[in-house]
Amino acid sequence: MRLARLGPAGAEIPTVVVDGTHHDLRPVLDSLGVADLGPAFFAADGLARAATAVADGTLPELPGAADLRVGAPLARPGKIVCIGLNYRDHAAETGAALPEEPIIFMKDPSTVVGPFDRVLVPVGSTKTDWEVELGVVIGRTARYLGSPAESRDHVAGYVLSHDVSEREFQLERGGQWDKGKSCETFNPLGPELVTADEVADPQDLRLTLSVNGVARQDGTTADMIFGVDHVIWYLSQFMVLEPGDVINTGTPAGVALGLPDHPYLKAGDVVELEITGLGRGRQTFEQATR
Amino acid sequence: MRLARLGPAGAEIPTVVVDGTHHDLRPVLDSLGVADLGPAFFAADGLARAATAVADGTLPELPGAADLRVGAPLARPGKIVCIGLNYRDHAAETGAALPEEPIIFMKDPSTVVGPFDRVLVPVGSTKTDWEVELGVVIGRTARYLGSPAESRDHVAGYVLSHDVSEREFQLERGGQWDKGKSCETFNPLGPELVTADEVADPQDLRLTLSVNGVARQDGTTADMIFGVDHVIWYLSQFMVLEPGDVINTGTPAGVALGLPDHPYLKAGDVVELEITGLGRGRQTFEQATR
Repeated sequence: MRLARLGPAGAEIPTVVVDGTHHDLRPVLDSLGVADLGPAFFAADGLARAATAVADGTLPELPGAADLRVGAPLARPGKIVCIGLNYRDHAAETGAALPEEPIIFMKDPSTVVGPFDRVLVPVGSTKTDWEVELGVVIGRTARYLGSPAESRDHVAGYVLSHDVSEREFQLERGGQWDKGKSCETFNPLGPELVTADEVADPQDLRLTLSVNGVARQDGTTADMIFGVDHVIWYLSQFMVLEPGDVINTGTPAGVALGLPDHPYLKAGDVVELEITGLGRGRQTFEQATR
Repeated sequence: MRLARLGPAGAEIPTVVVDGTHHDLRPVLDSLGVADLGPAFFAADGLARAATAVADGTLPELPGAADLRVGAPLARPGKIVCIGLNYRDHAAETGAALPEEPIIFMKDPSTVVGPFDRVLVPVGSTKTDWEVELGVVIGRTARYLGSPAESRDHVAGYVLSHDVSEREFQLERGGQWDKGKSCETFNPLGPELVTADEVADPQDLRLTLSVNGVARQDGTTADMIFGVDHVIWYLSQFMVLEPGDVINTGTPAGVALGLPDHPYLKAGDVVELEITGLGRGRQTFEQATR
């Protein structure tokens, strides 16, 4: 299935996309007593209920879907965990050593916006950077998994994620990376949450990103140092992953930090990004004001 | 006011404590259409409504309160932001340089438990450590505050917080501190959320912590390098602070990492901690199992 949320920010209508047409998922949510495509939906096995409703053909088409804003395809996550330097070529371009085990940092869940929403260059920022990433949405609680082979059962699906980053805040302002990862609007997500059964191999997806039409990133998840199964298993040794949590699994080479002329983002820049099979996003950057 | 939540985990009843007696806050929550003492409660100016109800004497006593479990005094935060090395003596004991500006890291919001709940030593942990901290609960959205003087208006109140930490995971497993801060049950919170008007000076609070009856930490918030007002103003330049968010403002000296014999926590250990005026907590540590 392909799940989406359409409508104004804060009032999105959950949908399931069948043959390119958005169907209203609210009857399923109502039957579960949950308000949105969030943690409670996944915890209540909402994906199975949605699949049944799709098979039964009971969900009404959502009228006027084409005219609605595309929101992030899931409600605010309980947490967003990110994996740093998880592609060999990106680690090399930043001058960092290859990590011996996954590097973990976190992003404020309130940074999630829709895939076509504006993104704000923070006040005082001179090094706002892009990072196209495969996002993993957790479907079932994962704690102390016994092996990476157990991970796949805990995945709800995959989503195109933009881990926008401010490099000065991240690297030059004292201590931990989180400082440059949680600025307002810094995690465009979507357009669709594609359920795990529809992604034949999460380690064979092409990720691309361009800025103002100039190709900047073109990688494949085959080049991850630590693949999705490893990452979920690994994270589950250090924290409890819960339904609706998002993991940003790292970015391939081609970010501004790694380019010779460091072409960081400024107001008016347009970033387009895509992961094969997960859809595309397009964000115009604007200057944040106080 | 002093707010609390009593009852089984996941089914706590919000209360307000008047002259040592718990009164049921649910009539106020119902009138606001919110389910718990969480982000929506603070955003709806719930504190003012609760104060009115207390003044009117309309809230019923909660029967049997003394026999109920004490939960964390607020529902799951949208995020938990932590300030690292924010006391001079603690920075010194860890061998770190004094930070020139606040060090920011994050903790998984799902780590919050009640102040008398068990805390789990993670599987594989040999360096589980304690950190008594002043927790700040945000009451009103803060973004790009103009000065530290503006911060106080955005505080709902203060809470005793235990920023439990695994030092090997934090410091020796590659990269960012978050890895050792988000283990299951690692943020006991409470017993009470004390509203800002009842805390004369958040920079004049004594924090103490003992392990198995041995005094380990005895500090004062007067020794913070960056005070509460500075921290909120500073954070608001890098992220949006929302109602219900929690800030752990750092710990004074005396953690196991800084002691000569590194007496890290193991199953059976009992940690007791207190901040003057905010109450006390007591947690027994148990070994986590897969």
